[in-house]
Amino acid sequence: MHADITDLRVGIEAAKSLIQGAIANKFYPNTNSNNSRKQICIADLGCSTGPNTFIAIQCIIEAIELQYKSQGLAIPEFQVFFNDQISNDFNTLFKKLPSNRNYFAAGVPGSFYGRLFPKESLNVVHSSASLNWISKVPKEITDRSSAACNKGRIHYTNAPKEVVDAYANQYQKDMEIFLHARAQELVGNGLMALQIPAATDVTFDSDFYCGKNFELLGTCLLDMAKEEKVDEEKVDTFNIPIFFSPLKDLIKILESNDDFIIEQMETMDAKSHFIPVNAQMYVSFHRAALEGVIENHFGNGILDELFHRYTKKVMEIPAIMDLQNLNIVGLFVLLRRKV
Amino acid sequence: MHADITDLRVGIEAAKSLIQGAIANKFYPNTNSNNSRKQICIADLGCSTGPNTFIAIQCIIEAIELQYKSQGLAIPEFQVFFNDQISNDFNTLFKKLPSNRNYFAAGVPGSFYGRLFPKESLNVVHSSASLNWISKVPKEITDRSSAACNKGRIHYTNAPKEVVDAYANQYQKDMEIFLHARAQELVGNGLMALQIPAATDVTFDSDFYCGKNFELLGTCLLDMAKEEKVDEEKVDTFNIPIFFSPLKDLIKILESNDDFIIEQMETMDAKSHFIPVNAQMYVSFHRAALEGVIENHFGNGILDELFHRYTKKVMEIPAIMDLQNLNIVGLFVLLRRKV
Repeated sequence: MHADITDLRVGIEAAKSLIQGAIANKFYPNTNSNNSRKQICIADLGCSTGPNTFIAIQCIIEAIELQYKSQGLAIPEFQVFFNDQISNDFNTLFKKLPSNRNYFAAGVPGSFYGRLFPKESLNVVHSSASLNWISKVPKEITDRSSAACNKGRIHYTNAPKEVVDAYANQYQKDMEIFLHARAQELVGNGLMALQIPAATDVTFDSDFYCGKNFELLGTCLLDMAKEEKVDEEKVDTFNIPIFFSPLKDLIKILESNDDFIIEQMETMDAKSHFIPVNAQMYVSFHRAALEGVIENHFGNGILDELFHRYTKKVMEIPAIMDLQNLNIVGLFVLLRRKV
Repeated sequence: MHADITDLRVGIEAAKSLIQGAIANKFYPNTNSNNSRKQICIADLGCSTGPNTFIAIQCIIEAIELQYKSQGLAIPEFQVFFNDQISNDFNTLFKKLPSNRNYFAAGVPGSFYGRLFPKESLNVVHSSASLNWISKVPKEITDRSSAACNKGRIHYTNAPKEVVDAYANQYQKDMEIFLHARAQELVGNGLMALQIPAATDVTFDSDFYCGKNFELLGTCLLDMAKEEKVDEEKVDTFNIPIFFSPLKDLIKILESNDDFIIEQMETMDAKSHFIPVNAQMYVSFHRAALEGVIENHFGNGILDELFHRYTKKVMEIPAIMDLQNLNIVGLFVLLRRKV
């Protein structure tokens, strides 16, 4: 469920050439003939149900093959692990696997905020637009006795500083767990290519900012609570587990990690990759990304009405759909596992 | 979809102790410290949606751990690949994964009559009650101009010799493809534990025999065709892709293979593992196993009526449910990949 919402933002083409260039430049073929591990193992974390994951994987494989060819080495076999939450629709993912693929495919269910693979079993890890999902809503956010209680909102935008801090702390903890788990799973010199949506800063004093859309969705839920179509208590305890980290904080987390060398890091200008969409398309992207967490909390009875109301509100302020108005930025980083 | 129908027959407990004993005796721990492949990779082929696959995998892992412990070696990490057809419900399988498992899990969609994994990437392969499914119904079976055309039946029982031969030829081809693919995927000295349902012989001159149940199901389809509830032409072109090989032919296929050493081979007396069931349970096992292929051919509109009719017929001859009356036998074989 993760990938699509932000591919809308960062543009798949720009991402493709970035990944391909990075891997082509930095992947070291395995020339150790004594090594019994002949295959190249690649994992895409937060793969959703395709097709973006297939495009990214194909890019990576082509870049690696190029490296082998240019060094006159035999092309190895590839094994690709498609990972997402256990609630992901793997049946659909598997049915959509390209029939002409040149790799062996496997699905791996589970949160990437924890170990998913054996030690030193992966050569390349990729994750696009998934690391802005935090592992859980911090406990204090729904604790009425806490200063970080986020009553009357479903996200941290325009919330008290304590709420923003609770999200930011969870994000930092999660990122550290993520990096530590991958450091164990990657072979020495293994590469990790991440595309992480972030915010240029955390201010809510302009008309538009990252998360404004969730705020709008929250007002729809509050309207439905007023009309007693949904339990107000339920709305108070619901929070979207997505955080757009201020870019500088995200970079600090990456730079302070000891397991990886930063081989390449650059921001992707979301604005230049703006894809114009209509309100229905815009909402359907959000619905695809969010309906899982909403259904988990509220049941599936409210989805249609909620997103119908949301569509109407989006149409009232269509400028919300224009990425040029948001303080969003994509960070591309290529990390190398230290040997 | 494969496992359950025959677990009814061979009994999971007997299978457990056989696998556990075989692996415990014959698995060689990897003591080569230069080998970068530290993890043990295990694949279960034809896993269905559990729970039998989880029980078998746990047996195998416990047996391997015992080997490492007894030699004073550190226990390695395990990665388990659960494989079945792309139509298998992997979402359900993943949700049922034991939460306290001591292995990393992955799902692998696709037919095991072909390559599924990179070369030399598996240490142990397991498959239970799946290899009696052939990869496809042989073409000539539905070819009206062929002597092997199986009009008016949905299985090879009581069919002309040409039909039986066409099934047997397909089975032999499939088994050879299976063994060749696994020979490439297993590491040298890797083990493959197979449990294959077979027939003591191919005769249909007694009251009961392997496949008699499919014959009974076929008469239900023919009845429905007569009542114009299903297209007769459709029934004529439908055949169940399951073959119970005569035991001696199966053993010949295994013995004539050059890639594997037969470490252990024994028949499992299905009769002693008879689990008494009622007609509803019996039919529900068959429905779980067969509804995929029936739905593919006829659509899902006929399933309820077909299996209702089948239940009635089974109740008329309850002796069909008693394995003691069938010429079925389970072959357990432990193969070792030659180095």
